[in-house]
Formats: sequence, C-alpha cells, structure tokens
Amino acid sequence: MKKRYLLSPGPTPVPEEVLLDMAKPIMHHRTPQFSAVFAECAEGLKKLFATSQPVMMLASSGTGAMEASITNLFSPGETVLVVNGGKFGERRGKIAEAYGLKVEWLSVEWGQAVSVGAVEEAIKKNPAIAAVLTQGSETSTTVAHPIQDLAKLTSGTDRLLIVDGITSVGVMPMPMDEWGIDVVLTGSQKALMLPPGLAFVSLSEKAWKKSEAAKLPKFYFDLAKEKKNLAKDTSSYTPAVSLIHGLRKVLEMMFDEGLENVYKRHESLARAARAGTAAIGLRPLAPEAPANSATGVFTPDGVDGAKLVKDLRDTYGVTFAGGQDQLKGKIVRIAHLGYFDSFDIVIALSALEMALAKTGHDVKMGAGVAAAQAELNKRYGG
Amino acid sequence: MKKRYLLSPGPTPVPEEVLLDMAKPIMHHRTPQFSAVFAECAEGLKKLFATSQPVMMLASSGTGAMEASITNLFSPGETVLVVNGGKFGERRGKIAEAYGLKVEWLSVEWGQAVSVGAVEEAIKKNPAIAAVLTQGSETSTTVAHPIQDLAKLTSGTDRLLIVDGITSVGVMPMPMDEWGIDVVLTGSQKALMLPPGLAFVSLSEKAWKKSEAAKLPKFYFDLAKEKKNLAKDTSSYTPAVSLIHGLRKVLEMMFDEGLENVYKRHESLARAARAGTAAIGLRPLAPEAPANSATGVFTPDGVDGAKLVKDLRDTYGVTFAGGQDQLKGKIVRIAHLGYFDSFDIVIALSALEMALAKTGHDVKMGAGVAAAQAELNKRYGG
Repeated sequence: MKKRYLLSPGPTPVPEEVLLDMAKPIMHHRTPQFSAVFAECAEGLKKLFATSQPVMMLASSGTGAMEASITNLFSPGETVLVVNGGKFGERRGKIAEAYGLKVEWLSVEWGQAVSVGAVEEAIKKNPAIAAVLTQGSETSTTVAHPIQDLAKLTSGTDRLLIVDGITSVGVMPMPMDEWGIDVVLTGSQKALMLPPGLAFVSLSEKAWKKSEAAKLPKFYFDLAKEKKNLAKDTSSYTPAVSLIHGLRKVLEMMFDEGLENVYKRHESLARAARAGTAAIGLRPLAPEAPANSATGVFTPDGVDGAKLVKDLRDTYGVTFAGGQDQLKGKIVRIAHLGYFDSFDIVIALSALEMALAKTGHDVKMGAGVAAAQAELNKRYGG
Repeated sequence: MKKRYLLSPGPTPVPEEVLLDMAKPIMHHRTPQFSAVFAECAEGLKKLFATSQPVMMLASSGTGAMEASITNLFSPGETVLVVNGGKFGERRGKIAEAYGLKVEWLSVEWGQAVSVGAVEEAIKKNPAIAAVLTQGSETSTTVAHPIQDLAKLTSGTDRLLIVDGITSVGVMPMPMDEWGIDVVLTGSQKALMLPPGLAFVSLSEKAWKKSEAAKLPKFYFDLAKEKKNLAKDTSSYTPAVSLIHGLRKVLEMMFDEGLENVYKRHESLARAARAGTAAIGLRPLAPEAPANSATGVFTPDGVDGAKLVKDLRDTYGVTFAGGQDQLKGKIVRIAHLGYFDSFDIVIALSALEMALAKTGHDVKMGAGVAAAQAELNKRYGG
C-alpha cells in the first residue's frame, strides 16, 4: 500500500467534489439544461479572466488554444516576436513557424524572466513585429514574466500581446482588460483543478478586429464561429460535457474562496516552497522572478536529478516534475497550483529531504519543513 | 479552500478504489452473484483473524458485536471479569451489566496496560469468573493490552478470553487460533479502511460450545443462526451490500500488501509518531505499552487540549481525536491505523507543531517532523 501524491505542475489534483460532479450521468449538449451550465461557465470564465470579452471553451489541450491564438490572428508572412525562455516559449514559436509566420526569437536564459527593455528594443529594431508572444509563467523554468509591463509596450499600438496563461491564470492576478492584454489562454489541468481536456481563450476588441483580416487556415479552432455559438450558449462542436460540469463546480469553488484569496494562497504556498528549499540548501532555478505556480530547484552536485525524481515517485509515492531538455536530470519542480494546500508543501519538502538523505547528500532533516511551516503558519494566524 | 485530513482513530480514511467499488450499482443479496462476494469475504476474514472458525459479518457498529459476544455466550447471573482501563473497557462492562451479568471490574489506570498478574489474581480470588473481557488496544488511551499472555491464563481452562479487537485487528498480529483467544471482534471503520456499518465476530470451538447453554435473550445478533447462514454463503438479515463490496476490495488490498507488511507499516508509523511527539516534548499517554493504532500525548501545561484539537480541525483542516471523560481537554490522539502512510504522520506532526506554536507554546518548528522523518525513511531504504 502506498499513498500517492501528485505534486507536478499539471496535471494537478482534482478536488473530490469536482470528480463527483463529473461522474454524474452525461447530459446531451444540445439541450436547455446543458446550455444553462455552459452559460454559467462562460460568465465565470469572464470573471476569472477579468474581461468583458467572451472566453471560448475548446475541447483540446492547452496547445490547441496556443494554435488557435496563431491561426485566428495572423496571415502568412506576418512577423511575431516570441519570448523563448523555456520549453513552452519554444513551442509557441514552433507553432507560428508551422503556420508560415516569420518568427523573431527573443532568447532568454532559462531561469530568467524576459527583460522588458529587450522586448522594446526588438520592436524598435523590427517594426514589422505584429505581436509579442509570451508565457505568463514559463512552467519549464518556474519563472514569471513581467506581463503588466509588457502590456504597456503594446497597448495603444496596433501590436498585440498574446499571453499563454497556462500556469498563470488562476495563480496570479492578470486582469486582461485592465492591463490591456490582447489574448489570454489557458488549459484545464493546472490552476483550474480539472483533468486535461479543456482549453480557454479570450481576445480583446483589438485582437478580434485584427482577426477579421487573418488568412491562416483553421477549421476546428475557428474562434469567430465559436464566439457566435457561445453567444447562443453553445459550442461549434461537441463540448466535453463532463469536463464542463467539472468546470462549473471549479469556478464555483474559486469564487467561493474569492479570487483574491486564491491568489494569496498560491503566493503563500510558493513562499513556503522557496523558503523550504532554500533551507535545504537547494539553489533556485528562478532566483529573480520566481512564479507562484511551481518552484524549481537544482539538485545538488553529485545527485542525479532524474534518479531522485524517479525514486520520489516510485518509492515515496510523491510525483514531482523533473527538468526538460537542457535541464533534464538537473532540477526538481515542486508544483503549488490549483488544488494545493499547506500540507502539500510539507509533504513535498519532507519527501525531498528524505530522498536526498538517502542519496548520501548531507541534509538536516526537518530544516526545510521548519522554514515552510513558519511561512505557512501565517495563513492560520500563527 | 481547505484540504481536510482525517487523522482520528475511527472513522478512518477509505481508499479511493474502495469508495469506487462501493459506488457500483446495488446487487440483490439473495443471488449467486452476491453469495460469491460474501463467500470471498468470509474466507478473507478467516485469514485476517487467523482462525479456522467462521467470522460472522454483522450490519452494525462495533458495539453490536460487543453485545453479541455477551448475549451469545452467557446466562443471567454469570460472572465476567472486565478489564476497565478506558472508555471502551467501561462500555464492555456496561453491556454485561445491562444483560444481568455480574461484573468484576478490574480497574487499570488510564494510559496503562492491564497487568497479567492482576488478572491471574482476580481469577484466583473468584473462580466463578466465566470469562475475561478486554480490548486488544484501548482506543481511548492508546494502550495495547498483553493479549498473548492473557490467553495463556484462559486457554486449557473453561474460562473464555473475549477480545474487543476494534483497534487491534489488522493493526498488530493477534492470531486467534494460535494464541487461543475465544472471541475476537472488530468493526469496519478502523484498520479495515471501510466506512462504519459492519462488525465482525468469531468464536473458538470452546466458545461455540459454551454458547449452546447461553440463555441471555437475543434475536438480531443470534450468532448460531448467523453461522448456519454463513455456511450457505448468506446472512440471516439483509447485509449491508455496498459495504460488503468494499470489504472484498479492502481484504484484497490487505492480502496484496501482505498481512506481515500491514503490521510492519503500522508499527513503523507508530514509531514515527512516538519519536515525533517526543521530539516536540509532549508527554506520552501510554509510555509503557503504546498501541500501534494511535498515539496519545498530553497537551503541554497551559494549553487547552480541547481548543487545540478544535483549532487543528477547523483552522488547519486536520482532524485528530481529543480525550474522553477524565482525559477531556488534556490529550491529543494521532491515529495511524488503516489507510495511513508515512506522510500522514508528517502532516500530523507539522500541523501539531504549527498549532502549538500559535498558542505561544515554545516549539522548535520541524523538530518533531525531523524525528519522524528519520524513522519513516527506514521504510524506503533511507
């Protein structure tokens, strides 16, 4: 018998009450009953995205919404600036290239946030840049990019700011209308506490206007068509009915907690994870601009990160994410987004300490936990 | 949003796969299909109790089986010796009294195990004692009684040893036939990892023989009738169908893990809880004969135990048991029986440290966790 803990940055754990809602009998999607659920979700998503624009629900993974935010906005040969500071920045640019856009790659050292000055300079150098594409939080490097400042560069211009919010929506405040972000997208299996299978995307008025001239081919991810159907409380193609039921429940839970409290919870769990890993003596992957979605740390010299992550998963029952590509075998990523609470951080740090001690690495057992406890206890008035 | 952890000694958490099995459509109980399930459970229970005798399944709480083990074995006016070292020892005697038996109370200080010598002496003083009634583990005081030694006093005599194994069956080895225990009973909501609602009881050959002369009134808990029906893979009255399905799954899980490993797991979790609470500086309730089912500790002077338990439950989301009767407000009981694994102990100790720190009590954060981690890491080869 081994209890298992899913502490990876997606898929994330799904609350029991959501699982139960998704286990209810399937409802037909072309009925007033389902339309009422769909409409409730649409309203909730607008509140979550902090926008007056519709938020489209797609039956796809987050990558589907990434593709939609290219194909619906550009025409062949247009130029986009892609912030490439990790695995997902890279994927962003590859999608643009696959559809024949000209990609200006803005390389950012893994573990660093993009510099607003560098984006400004790139735009000055090449005024043909039609849009800046970035993550809100780059999951592979646990970095938060300066979205509000980037939005200041693009708002009031014809240029778009397109934000992949897959690990930032529901984690940190990123009010779309107020900040002037043109496209925000996310997936279901992160802070939205759902299984994978849904993606969400919203366009500003400016983006909708630009989309009218977009000539890239699309069919399944035709957002204008989706918008039209959404206005009639339905979707163009068969929606993922059970997931939509789960979404209604999740949004209800988030609003019951209060979005401000959701963001505060993420922040304090992130602080605890940072304090805890620092107390263990682990070097942070993103020292300057750490995200509140996950905390990446380098494994100590002489410790094989891939083996450590495997041992934690298979022996201790605790699933973390390791590193990808150039960080493979070198880091551990502790998630704290979505259905996470204080004791998940305690579990993460105690398991990490135990598994590190087993490798022979000099660990003061309980030190990381203690640092996290002090931070977490603030949540309880301690 | 608050994750909740049920760390009380009953009801205990139910594994997801068991919950899913219990959620399956209800099967009619007078069918070959259900009889096959029932028979599988009956076989599994014999293995768990380590007996060749049938183990009867009753739709009741554990107290029902306690009553059955009185009404099926005695006649009015008979004398029984009742080990009374806690809430459940007391209840045991009250049931006997309610049915008109003469009860010799053997008082044991709360937190202590019964002395075998004291039982021996009581029997010598009053040879009319027809049976010794005790708990395997007294849940209210987290004490383990010396069952094997008590069995040596009664086996080979006409006297019975009747053991309430509600928090010892599935926690520690207590082989009924080998040790010569005459009656063992337990409930579903403890080490059996099920919701409350089922009780189990088995009688030795000697006990069955004595039961033939028992004149106390009974109807629902008529074990001879139940035994006859069990031989036909059924029960006298409607069985709790869903719980029986859960029971099949639970027994399968326990045998997959291996009973020896189940006992070892309980022992190492108990050791970790003891080491952790000691490192926090908390005085153990049962220093000499601690049970592997739960660990009771006194709250420090100046800390209101009832308030502490309430704060842990309502603020931190961690449900412990407090003290009952004379221990009310004075202790905390940390459970580790049934569906418990290493990180439950880590959660328990870190929450306890945090809540104690909040009261102003001088706690070295992480110290209890560290002591537990060192003990627990042995389970993983660390």
